[in-house]
Amino acid sequence: MQEENVNVFLRNVWYVAGFGTEVTRTPMQRRILGEDLVIYRTTSGVAVALANACPHRQLPLAMGRVVGENLQCGYHGAQFAADGRCVLVPGQVEVPATARVRSYPVRDLYGFVWVWMGEAALAATVEPIDLYAFVDSGKWDTRDGYKHIACNYELINDNLADITHVEFVHPSTLGTGEVRAVRGHGAGDPRPQAVHRFDVKSVADGIDFLFFAGNTRIAPAFESGYRRFKQAGEKDYLDFLLDFRFRAPSFWLFSPTTMKSGHPPEEGVRTSSPIAITPEDQGSCHYFFKTCQDYAPGNSAETAWWHEQTSLAFDEDQAVLEAQHANTSGPGKNGVSMAISFQGDGMGFQIRKLIRARQSAESGAPPTTHATG
Amino acid sequence: MQEENVNVFLRNVWYVAGFGTEVTRTPMQRRILGEDLVIYRTTSGVAVALANACPHRQLPLAMGRVVGENLQCGYHGAQFAADGRCVLVPGQVEVPATARVRSYPVRDLYGFVWVWMGEAALAATVEPIDLYAFVDSGKWDTRDGYKHIACNYELINDNLADITHVEFVHPSTLGTGEVRAVRGHGAGDPRPQAVHRFDVKSVADGIDFLFFAGNTRIAPAFESGYRRFKQAGEKDYLDFLLDFRFRAPSFWLFSPTTMKSGHPPEEGVRTSSPIAITPEDQGSCHYFFKTCQDYAPGNSAETAWWHEQTSLAFDEDQAVLEAQHANTSGPGKNGVSMAISFQGDGMGFQIRKLIRARQSAESGAPPTTHATG
Amino acid sequence: MQEENVNVFLRNVWYVAGFGTEVTRTPMQRRILGEDLVIYRTTSGVAVALANACPHRQLPLAMGRVVGENLQCGYHGAQFAADGRCVLVPGQVEVPATARVRSYPVRDLYGFVWVWMGEAALAATVEPIDLYAFVDSGKWDTRDGYKHIACNYELINDNLADITHVEFVHPSTLGTGEVRAVRGHGAGDPRPQAVHRFDVKSVADGIDFLFFAGNTRIAPAFESGYRRFKQAGEKDYLDFLLDFRFRAPSFWLFSPTTMKSGHPPEEGVRTSSPIAITPEDQGSCHYFFKTCQDYAPGNSAETAWWHEQTSLAFDEDQAVLEAQHANTSGPGKNGVSMAISFQGDGMGFQIRKLIRARQSAESGAPPTTHATG
Repeated sequence: MQEENVNVFLRNVWYVAGFGTEVTRTPMQRRILGEDLVIYRTTSGVAVALANACPHRQLPLAMGRVVGENLQCGYHGAQFAADGRCVLVPGQVEVPATARVRSYPVRDLYGFVWVWMGEAALAATVEPIDLYAFVDSGKWDTRDGYKHIACNYELINDNLADITHVEFVHPSTLGTGEVRAVRGHGAGDPRPQAVHRFDVKSVADGIDFLFFAGNTRIAPAFESGYRRFKQAGEKDYLDFLLDFRFRAPSFWLFSPTTMKSGHPPEEGVRTSSPIAITPEDQGSCHYFFKTCQDYAPGNSAETAWWHEQTSLAFDEDQAVLEAQHANTSGPGKNGVSMAISFQGDGMGFQIRKLIRARQSAESGAPPTTHATG
Repeated sequence: MQEENVNVFLRNVWYVAGFGTEVTRTPMQRRILGEDLVIYRTTSGVAVALANACPHRQLPLAMGRVVGENLQCGYHGAQFAADGRCVLVPGQVEVPATARVRSYPVRDLYGFVWVWMGEAALAATVEPIDLYAFVDSGKWDTRDGYKHIACNYELINDNLADITHVEFVHPSTLGTGEVRAVRGHGAGDPRPQAVHRFDVKSVADGIDFLFFAGNTRIAPAFESGYRRFKQAGEKDYLDFLLDFRFRAPSFWLFSPTTMKSGHPPEEGVRTSSPIAITPEDQGSCHYFFKTCQDYAPGNSAETAWWHEQTSLAFDEDQAVLEAQHANTSGPGKNGVSMAISFQGDGMGFQIRKLIRARQSAESGAPPTTHATG
Repeated sequence: MQEENVNVFLRNVWYVAGFGTEVTRTPMQRRILGEDLVIYRTTSGVAVALANACPHRQLPLAMGRVVGENLQCGYHGAQFAADGRCVLVPGQVEVPATARVRSYPVRDLYGFVWVWMGEAALAATVEPIDLYAFVDSGKWDTRDGYKHIACNYELINDNLADITHVEFVHPSTLGTGEVRAVRGHGAGDPRPQAVHRFDVKSVADGIDFLFFAGNTRIAPAFESGYRRFKQAGEKDYLDFLLDFRFRAPSFWLFSPTTMKSGHPPEEGVRTSSPIAITPEDQGSCHYFFKTCQDYAPGNSAETAWWHEQTSLAFDEDQAVLEAQHANTSGPGKNGVSMAISFQGDGMGFQIRKLIRARQSAESGAPPTTHATG
């Protein structure tokens, strides 16, 4: 459904439109922020994103084919340059002056193709988040993953920002009693006193947070991820450090490290997952992620194992997110209610507030206090 | 689709929400009168029905699990008591005072779980229809059946109230020329003069009717049902007695008896089917039924045979009802028209009138004369 | 979806409702111009089209059965004559005076059943397009084909009226550089000078056009169609003559002939395809066609080969048409835009203008200048 999406999404921002490897000379169709795009590479390899409708009779341009540096419509053969201008109409000398299609600024960086859905003139003033250290530095083994999630993108933000759900949604992967412990329930716990830290810091366009649980038992995936590769006694306690960064409106960088208690992170097992959430529409998202590890370079089996764990946990979230969205969207439903909140909601609220502020800055209107998403 | 269902349905009445055996410690989701419920048993066995959305972030509670006498939400672990109150939020001491979910009064009787969708305070003043004699008396062999029917529930009432359709919709089961005969077409029939009776009686909240066709050939299902178990000569004529009761808005008790002509019902073959129609929404229904027989106690093959016949006849009705609903519902359609009526429609009209009167009593408004359903 | 279709379609015209062979004593349901019809033959073989809803309780009459010259409703057995009058209600003597269903005028001609969706009194003043020469003259071998196409019918008109798309949509069947050549791109072509003609003529209710390309290489399907049956040297050039007729609002007669260069059409390979497009609704069409050939009488393998080629080309169009429709229809979309046009659009515009004029004549309103379809 094509709805009125103006002001619903942040537009002056780089969104991931796809993996670099899936953008080829065979045009592909992708819907982003409620708009249909055709994305392809020209013969010389340049990634291009155009509106997916020929201005003549609106055939999806994704049904056409790349001819040199142009995209040729599959209906009457009109050709469009990367800037969207119609440069050729077969069988006639003149090309209608108004024949052009919207071209979206594109960046081809870090294994992602990024697209700018807002005011084109502003695209040059901002760059995508710098992922050089993870993807291009040559130190990481990485693997791509994609999920299509049928929910509003802000529900995914809420979910990622909230560490208290892991015990209930991810019992076999990320779940751990430690989360509850750090929030005040740990008294009387027979385990040795764990050292915990939970730091949240506002940065430009986002939030950085750091979680540390020391000398303790940690989430199953991290525990077994550590033990499958490193030597550790059955009863050894581990330290767990999570570096988690959010960039508005929906980019996340999730970097967990597991190490022997008291040892420095450099001796541990570290992975990192950039997560790029790109709204397809108000009720669905593209969820692009990479699983990266740098402790076993060249060991793709290790990378695959982490990818599988990560993907499993995301599947667990997806089931929750889609049920939550279905339960609150559609005729007679009013979106997710924020009327009742728990202590774990704080970060989610902070993120929603940040997005509202940027939305109002983009639209020139004062920020509203949307309670629903 | 969640529509505005206030006043569309009778609410201060017990509806069957499911069979007692399907309500277990594994929560199940069921939509009733356009509202989504989660239904389950606590560890001690008490049946509970709650609104199927956690008040915190609206995850369907049916995705949670029973913990003792509470239901635990599958997202953040909040626990709800049977009365809908949130009694625990993991990781925090205080529970938000407004955190509660609607709890629906429940009865666990006669092999059905019944739910009260109206004003809770009134639930204690009414009891579900008494089915003790059929289900709990120990005299009947019973079997459960369920159909999901995509039509407005009043079309099913019309269908059950109308004996003239059986010749056309149920030629292999319930159809018989006798129905037409009793209505005035029997003159010149070569068969011996049949004795017929058709009595209709208004009772509190419903209608009782009795149909008797004596010394005649009867509907195929009843004829072969009698002959497969009792001794009867090829040319023997039988008597057929149908005791049929309606209780507003959509409960039916269908009890046919077949016996040798002139013999008392006690010597015949009697079955009985409670039929509980529970609107799922305006355009679909749950159709719960039981097939009971008391003439061959402990003979489950006999019960199964009757269940199969009954289910077949309901399937024949379902095909008609869903096509009728599809032909009259949706954009630009105005529901079933009652503008033209046949003589067989009388009982259906009486039932619709009874429901309208109760609806207006519930809403405090004078009864309207809805001609459509 | 049943939408307000008044004035959207031309009504006082004969539409093909089906092939003569598919209209039998088993009633069938077909949606035409947004109205549901039941179509059948009475016992004596007369084709009848009625509104597909019993006036009593709106069961689709297509669920009933033919009884002599009447159609019997499958719910209560009411019978309807071919003129739509209810003539029998089982079990009662009187038939309600207002019990009747709309009957649509029908013609049973040329292997098609035609239906008149407009003012019944006008049906006798017009006859379906005369196809005697193709279907009933005994000179042609014919084969029927059907496609259900999910687009507005005017997009199909646009497509058939536009010869410039064949190079891009039908490279393996109808595509040929000659089309482009005739439009001015042929200069410098190494092939012998081709002789081309392209005549367009307005006729009552339609347009006739004639395309001739002489002494040239022609479209793959016609080239191989000629060569598979006739003797021709590898390097022989052929002549191609296309006789193409449009009758408002959506009937086409497509007759291509291929012959040795300089020889008369009578010595060539001629096929002919009547194409009857009948709108099902605003967003979908029935597409009935026949493939006829008269150069190899009685050779059904030859007919089948042409049918396969024709059907393949229609499939290529269908993919384009449905994608074009999906890209321009639905919430927030405004139909196909005609804002930008190419030289090949001329005939399509002429046809749209003709339809608008007839629509306004039917509705009594001045013609609007709809730019979208």
